[in-house]
Amino acid sequence: MIDRAPAGAGTYALVETFFRSEFTTDNPLITQAVKRMLAAGGKRLRPRMTLLAAEANGAAAADHLPLAAYMELIHVATLIHDDVVDNATTRRGVNATAVDYGNRISVLAGDYLFAWIFKNVTAQYPHPVPNILSATLAEICDGEVLQLRALGDLDLPLRAYLEIVLKKTASLFAASAECGALMAGAPAASAGALRDYGRWYGTAFQMMDDLLDVTADASRLGKPVGNDLQERKMTIPLILALANGDGNFRALVERLYSKGDRSAVGLVVEGIAALGGLARTREQIADYARRAELALAPLPESGAKAELVKLAQELRVEN
Amino acid sequence: MIDRAPAGAGTYALVETFFRSEFTTDNPLITQAVKRMLAAGGKRLRPRMTLLAAEANGAAAADHLPLAAYMELIHVATLIHDDVVDNATTRRGVNATAVDYGNRISVLAGDYLFAWIFKNVTAQYPHPVPNILSATLAEICDGEVLQLRALGDLDLPLRAYLEIVLKKTASLFAASAECGALMAGAPAASAGALRDYGRWYGTAFQMMDDLLDVTADASRLGKPVGNDLQERKMTIPLILALANGDGNFRALVERLYSKGDRSAVGLVVEGIAALGGLARTREQIADYARRAELALAPLPESGAKAELVKLAQELRVEN
Repeated sequence: MIDRAPAGAGTYALVETFFRSEFTTDNPLITQAVKRMLAAGGKRLRPRMTLLAAEANGAAAADHLPLAAYMELIHVATLIHDDVVDNATTRRGVNATAVDYGNRISVLAGDYLFAWIFKNVTAQYPHPVPNILSATLAEICDGEVLQLRALGDLDLPLRAYLEIVLKKTASLFAASAECGALMAGAPAASAGALRDYGRWYGTAFQMMDDLLDVTADASRLGKPVGNDLQERKMTIPLILALANGDGNFRALVERLYSKGDRSAVGLVVEGIAALGGLARTREQIADYARRAELALAPLPESGAKAELVKLAQELRVEN
Repeated sequence: MIDRAPAGAGTYALVETFFRSEFTTDNPLITQAVKRMLAAGGKRLRPRMTLLAAEANGAAAADHLPLAAYMELIHVATLIHDDVVDNATTRRGVNATAVDYGNRISVLAGDYLFAWIFKNVTAQYPHPVPNILSATLAEICDGEVLQLRALGDLDLPLRAYLEIVLKKTASLFAASAECGALMAGAPAASAGALRDYGRWYGTAFQMMDDLLDVTADASRLGKPVGNDLQERKMTIPLILALANGDGNFRALVERLYSKGDRSAVGLVVEGIAALGGLARTREQIADYARRAELALAPLPESGAKAELVKLAQELRVEN
């Protein structure tokens, strides 16, 4: 059995121990593929949010580990599917699962994982948890379809970017926190507050992810700098830099986004910084991280609440 | 509203009308992709089984159309994912969704459809229906993984073939019939009988599908004759022909399955027939179709039951 651990950083250790010692699916090949993805890193933020939300409502984190694990596994399944190579329209560098196992196995592994999660969730959790999780997965897919359709669209408004982020990223953080609260027997106001916290945290988190793509070094990212730009994604630093209205910068971005000239990546990164794209992105991150903090107001003070506040504050100071 | 129609062939029309007039998802691109798959044909056997199972338990088919539609949509979603092209290991001819939309969109469309189905099912149907459907999807994926791993394995025993078929094909027929019965308020014995009917029907159905791959003409199949053989699948006519122990035939199959010599397809098809693979497959189909019929014994006589019997008998005489 897993020892009870204090709130906060302890939740990371709880989740890791659970995955190492208790996690298994009915299919050894899938279990192996999942463990491989988990071993590649990750901060386990989604399951930690579930555990902290449960703790903030008086429950013991250790009692909600399987539910927390399902949140991370939904994320892992979407990552496995993200790695499917589309030779027709994109050429990516390294695609871990797809390269090692092939597209067919990657698709099946992700499908199996989704199905296995829902099989367990529908057997173990009452309404509305299974409904929240399946609705969240639908939102994630919807957001990713919107993102694919927005690739290379230099006129994408910030509003449309936010819709994509809310669906593809923030929805799972929101569900992770909400379900943790619900299973701890939280009153509706508290569950709603934690859902809002997750939504705004997830929004700031994705913006930070966008920012790191053009500011971090490759070893920290685990992928090349400017990877999002090479995939013609409309990230928030780019959108905010384009909003500056500089015609030369737009022409430069078009070289990369419309004509596929990858030699322009470095100049686009420099242009984003020069046009205030980084500074304005940091403002947006701080704004959404602050919204996340404020959402917690209805909750009584607790170690878990303090840890949730700290997670949001880390996003504001991290870059 | 849809008019009440009699049992039997009428269920096909009911399902078609439902898909044409009422079916839509929250995502127009996905709705279009699904309608495109539906328009390409299909006998709608899974939803018809749901409707007939409900009718056989005293319910009106028209009252269970959404549930029936979900069964077809699970099938459609798996087809969309089947179409994902794996350039690394296979080269297929035509891959409708993947070719028109790209692998990435195919993966997302299938994922979205699964999630959308579960979102609705968890909101609209009581336990154990959502659990049966997610467990079934896990079985389908598990069966497809087993099938991929068995590609080209000329020593695959019939027992292992049956496990694959029960998982990848029969499980959804079983769930379709069982859930129709459950939602009609069927007693456990009746729901179990219909689940068994679906399982044996689905097994015979997959065997028939294997058989048609080597006996039907390309226009009837909608794909090239010997397509399964070209994909190195272990189909039942091939397994039963190999069981004959003819060394020359095995060497011929190895030319195609191990060395990739596609010019051998025609000779392998001829060899399967000459070694009794077709006749013995027809015996197996008749055997499983008979099991399906016998499974219905606990049900009182009704038009719906008679139609289910007829569906099973059609498999026995179709080839």
